[in-house]
Amino acid sequence: MAPDIPKSIRQWNVTAKDGRDGFNVLKYSEQPMPEVGDSQVLVKLHAASLNYRDLIIPLGQYPFDTAPNVVPGSDGAGTVVAVGKHVTRFKPGDKVVTLFSQQHIGGPLTPEGAASGLGGALDGTLRSFGAFSEQGLVRMPSNLSPAEASTLPCAGLTAWNALYGLSDNQVTAGQWVLTQGTGGVSIFALQFAKAAGARVIATTGSSEKVDVLKKLGADHVLNYKETPEWGAEAKKLTGGVGLDHIIEVAGPKSMAQSLAAIKISGVITIIGFVGGHTKDQPGFIDCLTNLCTARGILVGSRAQMEDMCRAIEANPDKLRPVVDKKTFRLEELKEAYEYQFSGKHFGKVCVEIS
Amino acid sequence: MAPDIPKSIRQWNVTAKDGRDGFNVLKYSEQPMPEVGDSQVLVKLHAASLNYRDLIIPLGQYPFDTAPNVVPGSDGAGTVVAVGKHVTRFKPGDKVVTLFSQQHIGGPLTPEGAASGLGGALDGTLRSFGAFSEQGLVRMPSNLSPAEASTLPCAGLTAWNALYGLSDNQVTAGQWVLTQGTGGVSIFALQFAKAAGARVIATTGSSEKVDVLKKLGADHVLNYKETPEWGAEAKKLTGGVGLDHIIEVAGPKSMAQSLAAIKISGVITIIGFVGGHTKDQPGFIDCLTNLCTARGILVGSRAQMEDMCRAIEANPDKLRPVVDKKTFRLEELKEAYEYQFSGKHFGKVCVEIS
Amino acid sequence: MAPDIPKSIRQWNVTAKDGRDGFNVLKYSEQPMPEVGDSQVLVKLHAASLNYRDLIIPLGQYPFDTAPNVVPGSDGAGTVVAVGKHVTRFKPGDKVVTLFSQQHIGGPLTPEGAASGLGGALDGTLRSFGAFSEQGLVRMPSNLSPAEASTLPCAGLTAWNALYGLSDNQVTAGQWVLTQGTGGVSIFALQFAKAAGARVIATTGSSEKVDVLKKLGADHVLNYKETPEWGAEAKKLTGGVGLDHIIEVAGPKSMAQSLAAIKISGVITIIGFVGGHTKDQPGFIDCLTNLCTARGILVGSRAQMEDMCRAIEANPDKLRPVVDKKTFRLEELKEAYEYQFSGKHFGKVCVEIS
Amino acid sequence: MAPDIPKSIRQWNVTAKDGRDGFNVLKYSEQPMPEVGDSQVLVKLHAASLNYRDLIIPLGQYPFDTAPNVVPGSDGAGTVVAVGKHVTRFKPGDKVVTLFSQQHIGGPLTPEGAASGLGGALDGTLRSFGAFSEQGLVRMPSNLSPAEASTLPCAGLTAWNALYGLSDNQVTAGQWVLTQGTGGVSIFALQFAKAAGARVIATTGSSEKVDVLKKLGADHVLNYKETPEWGAEAKKLTGGVGLDHIIEVAGPKSMAQSLAAIKISGVITIIGFVGGHTKDQPGFIDCLTNLCTARGILVGSRAQMEDMCRAIEANPDKLRPVVDKKTFRLEELKEAYEYQFSGKHFGKVCVEIS
Repeated sequence: MAPDIPKSIRQWNVTAKDGRDGFNVLKYSEQPMPEVGDSQVLVKLHAASLNYRDLIIPLGQYPFDTAPNVVPGSDGAGTVVAVGKHVTRFKPGDKVVTLFSQQHIGGPLTPEGAASGLGGALDGTLRSFGAFSEQGLVRMPSNLSPAEASTLPCAGLTAWNALYGLSDNQVTAGQWVLTQGTGGVSIFALQFAKAAGARVIATTGSSEKVDVLKKLGADHVLNYKETPEWGAEAKKLTGGVGLDHIIEVAGPKSMAQSLAAIKISGVITIIGFVGGHTKDQPGFIDCLTNLCTARGILVGSRAQMEDMCRAIEANPDKLRPVVDKKTFRLEELKEAYEYQFSGKHFGKVCVEIS
Repeated sequence: MAPDIPKSIRQWNVTAKDGRDGFNVLKYSEQPMPEVGDSQVLVKLHAASLNYRDLIIPLGQYPFDTAPNVVPGSDGAGTVVAVGKHVTRFKPGDKVVTLFSQQHIGGPLTPEGAASGLGGALDGTLRSFGAFSEQGLVRMPSNLSPAEASTLPCAGLTAWNALYGLSDNQVTAGQWVLTQGTGGVSIFALQFAKAAGARVIATTGSSEKVDVLKKLGADHVLNYKETPEWGAEAKKLTGGVGLDHIIEVAGPKSMAQSLAAIKISGVITIIGFVGGHTKDQPGFIDCLTNLCTARGILVGSRAQMEDMCRAIEANPDKLRPVVDKKTFRLEELKEAYEYQFSGKHFGKVCVEIS
Repeated sequence: MAPDIPKSIRQWNVTAKDGRDGFNVLKYSEQPMPEVGDSQVLVKLHAASLNYRDLIIPLGQYPFDTAPNVVPGSDGAGTVVAVGKHVTRFKPGDKVVTLFSQQHIGGPLTPEGAASGLGGALDGTLRSFGAFSEQGLVRMPSNLSPAEASTLPCAGLTAWNALYGLSDNQVTAGQWVLTQGTGGVSIFALQFAKAAGARVIATTGSSEKVDVLKKLGADHVLNYKETPEWGAEAKKLTGGVGLDHIIEVAGPKSMAQSLAAIKISGVITIIGFVGGHTKDQPGFIDCLTNLCTARGILVGSRAQMEDMCRAIEANPDKLRPVVDKKTFRLEELKEAYEYQFSGKHFGKVCVEIS
Repeated sequence: MAPDIPKSIRQWNVTAKDGRDGFNVLKYSEQPMPEVGDSQVLVKLHAASLNYRDLIIPLGQYPFDTAPNVVPGSDGAGTVVAVGKHVTRFKPGDKVVTLFSQQHIGGPLTPEGAASGLGGALDGTLRSFGAFSEQGLVRMPSNLSPAEASTLPCAGLTAWNALYGLSDNQVTAGQWVLTQGTGGVSIFALQFAKAAGARVIATTGSSEKVDVLKKLGADHVLNYKETPEWGAEAKKLTGGVGLDHIIEVAGPKSMAQSLAAIKISGVITIIGFVGGHTKDQPGFIDCLTNLCTARGILVGSRAQMEDMCRAIEANPDKLRPVVDKKTFRLEELKEAYEYQFSGKHFGKVCVEIS
């Protein structure tokens, strides 16, 4: 190992996930520098960004399995400082971003890929150094800061997959795309759709955010508090034809509106449920009556991430990731979680790792 | 018009759809021979087959618009007897089957295509002669009887679209496909899947039908009355990986099992709801937790129907449509509806039109 | 027929195609107003645009069959003035553009679609009025002039199909696209690629055109006279990876360079051969050694044309068709052909039809 | 390392590739047992099969780069005997087949994937033991012998990719597929096409092979010596429509016939050139005049190989690999190469490794 690599690292762990102690189950400690396996790359992490998923893992609300005492952090950007002897993809000095599903290299998601998420199944990015498989890293877009780049692995790639992941309905110029709110995936979807020449209807519950969404490129913004039947309204805005893509992040109540807005043969990508659950919910028969497709996705593949990074480099003005003005240091992780949990942010909440 | 074409035809009409008079709203009468437009083809119909949709239109339960006093019948097979002066696709003597969505020629379904269904939006096939757009007919597979061919436009094409309609998950040899019961779509899906080298798990509620399903090629048959948690059982039969395709015809209760059975990245095609509705139903969040796609479809396109007919001709032994042993004459239509409604049939109920 | 529709029309015909009399085989005459079939739409044509194909049909160099004495003109834009009694898609007053392959509605091209080209197999647009199947027309983008719109059916749609016609390699933001010269298809491809967020390398043989191509959005312009090995140079510009899409219009010599420039898994769309033939040409083995795909296309489908028109309406600034500053009247058709043949134009040569 | 693993292995190397000494550049020696990296799997190889590529590497005719002194062998089947500490996909005792392009996991081929072929860029399978990345192995179909399984990585997967690798034209029941001769890829393509319900026209130059090809399922066999214009003849057999898929293995002369036989929108997959080169060859303009696609491929991805292995297990009767009746021992490798070179074999030439 190179002489300038320290002997120890700083690291967070999720020490319990029964949800009884809130974010206090997050523990910060000094740990030995990880060994670098033959096919691994040691990365000095510079930044991570937070996702809704990161919050609900310590709260015990995450619906998938996670490893005990896991290092949290789904997203990360850093610099390669050492490589194992079999590594061919990277060399020290390379700037990299982590891939979320470490085993989802290309093609459709497999069970193996689904069980390889950073900060859940596998140790994540909220630490000063990490050893990752060389397969699980992607070159960082050269025009981004580490904090900006750290927003790509989850929020960015999920939005990209939503818009490009189904061969029969990849976003094209002229299509209509609906995004919901100002979470990370939604903002990326808005930006990717506009960069592709599509038209975007964005929803929000806050009149202050209307302008920001328009500045980001939204052609129309609907306030769902003022227009609870925004589904019909959105469809009207498309000339009665409906939306080609809806990025559904909010859950059953929102889904009923999405079904009212979707075009025949359109695709609703099911990303999240931040609006919570309810018993009185639309059922799958509505896919039949609306002749649409609903698709649940888990982030995306490395091949898609490489395509996305290339798009970002080629469109630096349109595709600059939106980072909240408030960033946190690694040791302030709990404050960062609380801030993200409060919903006061706009854009991604990032953690700078020195 | 050729001298051997009669001046009048026999025809059924759906005279009301408020559901108050059951199948008695179906009226039979003599009508003048339809005029043949410049781009139309006059077809002497030889057979039609019945679909669940045909039953619920007169009963007032069909969720889409239908034309007043429409001629029922979604499916038909016959012989061209005259063609309009602009017709190029057919000539008298050609054997044809009708296309269900008369305006769905190729590519994804559009609103225009969705509003062009025979026996609903447009006059259908339960009459002795009909004039159809030359665009809305397909050559009959040469190896089928008219009754057999008349099962293709709805049940056959819906199954084909379910298995082949999504580029990213077309059925291939070795995939696992689940079909439900012994309705027309389900039997066709079983046959198409087997002809493609896939493996099929069929469900049924009747122990007598197990053998017939196996004779049709099912690798495994699950009795959902004996195994109410058939979703988990089906997944186990695939080695724990799950089904690539599920043809969902039964509604919410069944859908919960389908979600338990589906593979990551698998596709559940939503075809029907013969098992009825229920409030306590799975919601779209289950697409996310199961990482699958749900797709509502309306039959399919002419391009798909031509592909399907070609497959049937190429595989005459494996892909012979299953027609119930009891057939009806055109004037016995109400009896045919009652018989289909009773659920006593196996395979498609056909009407022979002399 | 409405009282304001004249009894006669002005019309060009291609009276011979043995090539012995140059463009003099084009004859102009007054003809009776066409009858409007039951499924047809009568269109007052306002503009047509010329294509290379239109030139070589009277010269006897077109490699496909054409009808005797055909009305030339592959492209047209106009206003509906009357509709047949079975027409449902249009009404008088609608602005329309013609579809090139009148029978290519959606899905892959079929022999039937390939044999239905306007101005070749079927009577075209170089006349004051034409009766077209209602299936063979598309709504005109509302923001275009008739001359602009008349460039869409061939040049526009061919470029769109090249970039979007293969599910596995639809143009996305960040991809690299190479276009050749300043013909209609090439300029549209440049514009569509830029509107989709892609990067474009354009080639030209004329140093004066470099600036115009850059103004249209080209990221790089290569002069093939100065850089005969432009294939390697283009590949270098992509960082050594190669082009995702090449729109090949020039023939064997150019194709050798395209093969040197293409990316592994990239697609070269074969559109034309304006650079002429040569015996010493690359062969198909080069698809293997370069691990790429070559795809010959014939314009595109109505579904694709509708998508393209929607893209144009949504991106009025980026996707304005480039029309040559010199336009012609219908009676000046031979001059228009000579002008197009001279190669002095930039953008599409249009014929205004009063 | 487990006590029963020997200290040394037997191994072939390609000691030169200038082609001056024929197969004598293949050298056999004892070598130390390879170390097993953290992410590697040590495989006791039981069988390998030979490919045209393996022959031309020592002869200096292979058009891609190869590593100096490389261990030959593109294909292999064996048993896992030890795993590195980071390995999760396999455990000792697992039966495996090697993946040809060790870095082509899923999605389209990349430069990285193209440069990772076994027996060329990377050490191959003609040795008693090998250490492979856990990413570069696939579970062996349970119903095959090692020799049978060793035919899958190159010949099998290439055929599978040809038929399934392009989303817009995956082989379906009823399609027409043309295969050429009795090489490994061609026989697999015949078998896969028949298992999928397609129709197959096979060509051969030998009247004795007609019956064998029919026994393998070919619907028609054309002798290209008796019918030099077999392209037109094949098209006629399809009813004049043409072939959906042609697996082109023979080079320019054959390609001219393939172009005559292909359907509009059909795909010719360019696999090889066993018939040699010629200057007078069809050019890419023929993709335009025939409106078809030509696609060069390099074997396929791990995701495709897993799909293929699943298809083989599900269709054990139809998809049994055809192994030549003569097999060789590892030390007889040169004889095996000579035998394969002589062209006297039918089916794959396999090497049994004790």
